Amino acid sequence: MSERNAVTVIGLGPMGRALASAFLGAGHPTTVWNRTPGKDEDLVARGAMRAGSPEEAVAASPLTVVCVVNYDASDAVLRRGPVAAALEGRTVVNLSADTPDRARESAAWAAGHGIGYLDGAIMTPAPTIGTADAVLLHSGPEGLHQAHRETLEALGGRQTYLGEEIGRAAAYDIALLDIFWTAMTGYAHALAVARAEGITAQELAPFAGGIATIMPPLFEKSAALVDKGDYTDEINPITSAASTMAHIVHHSEAHGIDASVMRAAEGLARRVIGAGHGADGLLRITELLNPR
Amino acid sequence: MSERNAVTVIGLGPMGRALASAFLGAGHPTTVWNRTPGKDEDLVARGAMRAGSPEEAVAASPLTVVCVVNYDASDAVLRRGPVAAALEGRTVVNLSADTPDRARESAAWAAGHGIGYLDGAIMTPAPTIGTADAVLLHSGPEGLHQAHRETLEALGGRQTYLGEEIGRAAAYDIALLDIFWTAMTGYAHALAVARAEGITAQELAPFAGGIATIMPPLFEKSAALVDKGDYTDEINPITSAASTMAHIVHHSEAHGIDASVMRAAEGLARRVIGAGHGADGLLRITELLNPR
Ligand SMILES: NC(=O)c1ccc[n+]([C@@H]2O[C@H](COP(=O)([O-])OP(=O)(O)OC[C@H]3O[C@@H](n4cnc5c(N)ncnc54)[C@H](OP(=O)(O)O)[C@@H]3O)[C@@H](O)[C@H]2O)c1
Ligand SMILES: NC(=O)c1ccc[n+]([C@@H]2O[C@H](COP(=O)([O-])OP(=O)(O)OC[C@H]3O[C@@H](n4cnc5c(N)ncnc54)[C@H](OP(=O)(O)O)[C@@H]3O)[C@@H](O)[C@H]2O)c1
Repeated sequence: MSERNAVTVIGLGPMGRALASAFLGAGHPTTVWNRTPGKDEDLVARGAMRAGSPEEAVAASPLTVVCVVNYDASDAVLRRGPVAAALEGRTVVNLSADTPDRARESAAWAAGHGIGYLDGAIMTPAPTIGTADAVLLHSGPEGLHQAHRETLEALGGRQTYLGEEIGRAAAYDIALLDIFWTAMTGYAHALAVARAEGITAQELAPFAGGIATIMPPLFEKSAALVDKGDYTDEINPITSAASTMAHIVHHSEAHGIDASVMRAAEGLARRVIGAGHGADGLLRITELLNPR
Repeated sequence: MSERNAVTVIGLGPMGRALASAFLGAGHPTTVWNRTPGKDEDLVARGAMRAGSPEEAVAASPLTVVCVVNYDASDAVLRRGPVAAALEGRTVVNLSADTPDRARESAAWAAGHGIGYLDGAIMTPAPTIGTADAVLLHSGPEGLHQAHRETLEALGGRQTYLGEEIGRAAAYDIALLDIFWTAMTGYAHALAVARAEGITAQELAPFAGGIATIMPPLFEKSAALVDKGDYTDEINPITSAASTMAHIVHHSEAHGIDASVMRAAEGLARRVIGAGHGADGLLRITELLNPR
């Protein structure tokens, strides 16, 4: 086995710890730092080096992976004189979630300080990191990505390089988390409504899982049509969806349960119907939101 | 092969047609009726009997399956003197989606007219009907369900009898469609946001499918805890979710895209955090919505 490149991980929340653990597991000399001390005990026991400051941390490796809550947090760590100076000639991969604009602005900052800058997004939960199930997206200068690809491979099986445009990974991240958090909020709401009817989460979960399973083929099947602005849906007209959405609102509120999310969703469906597209499918909401 | 029982299907939208087609395919003498004529050509060509009126339709079979847009529509068909009279001593299975209260009220109406009444819900798209992938839920008097189970088996592979309480199937339906339509609205929104960043539906779809795939294990893993009112989430604190939700709102609105659904969802997350539960997971929204 050839010698592994050293890597630094900044941020030791559940995800940062998973990243550091995967680097250690793959044999990379790994340096860690977190704003609040005390989150690195396990990692240090397994051979990680504990840095006393972020500048010391980034100086320890050619590559620093940052994974904190968002870019306000990564800016708070990176955009200080000593840290920026220590990073000069080195590379940062920022895996913190934020918007494409923040990634673009950070790349400009990094360029101004002679720092190599890549952005990335992690699309699967912390326990997948280092396994075949991990899904990561990367964007930024191709040469820089190639230079660190081997190190990043330690993080898991399904990594996609989306191209030079630095905001691309964050743009995918925003869209995919839009689906994820909207759906999870729907699930949280469904659990509240189910409980009002005496149905437990354990009773609902297998059927709820079945609902999630329906979606990937629907996404695949509709994609080419949606790209053409064609929202025909021979299986499910939006009028039928809106009828069900109204039941959910009505039934929730009859149980005293806030239905603000579904009210907003039904509102979008009603506007599509009002605009004369009731025979189309629910995805016509896309066109209402962002007309071409 | 023993002779199959006759069955009537009322409502020939995409789902009613799929139901009638499955009954025909399984060899049941099948009578069909739809408010608007002209939707039964294929079915009649395959041997279905076309009824001239709903009373004629229900008189043709011991079992009538009703599948129209909702209970307002099924009431409009069934609750007329001649139809109710023709149904006396026969059984209706109402597979139209609506609320548990409507199912309960309809069961009372049916009892008052000497009509056997079962309620059901279809949890998978029309093309699954008659295949192993079809998921149907049933509730109502057990003897009645047993009497018609064999006929209903023609509709597909995964059918669950949820018990005597007539509202049960609709209660599951509401909860499950809450997840489905909320998630699909999230997907429609994600497509709009992605397109604003130059990402096509075909580019996003495979990753979007991956997001849906993450959910069933999360549902399973959290269910027992949620039933105990424990919303601990060591992988993903709601503060981290709320940060991402805020990015989605901000980024959407910066592109001029309505973010009312995510605004409502983020609002629920912020209220959980404001109530002091920021270290818990997003599912604590369930407890906010329906405190035990
Ligand atoms: N957890 C997952 O399964 C998952 C999955 C996909 C993507 N992600 C993404 O990965 C990133 C990290 O997530 P996470 O789950 O590890 O936890 P998180 O709660 O999103 O972030 C916690 C980390 O952010 C740090 N932090 C917060 N504010 C800071 C500040 N002002 N200055 C310096 N550090 C600050 C925390 O340090 P302290 O300990 O000092 O507070 C901690 O290291 C997020 O962007 C998240 O969206 C996570
Ligand atoms: N399609 C699916 O994949 C799917 C999946 C699961 C569950 N479902 C449920 O199955 C049920 C039927 O759905 P669908 O997809 O077939 O289409 P739909 O658009 O929900 O319903 C169309 C049917 O309802 C009838 N209808 C509407 N208003 C009526 C009224 N006032 N009087 C009499 N009939 C009326 C229509 O008759 P006309 O032709 O005369 O308008 C047509 O037969 C719904 O409750 C739906 O939620 C559907």
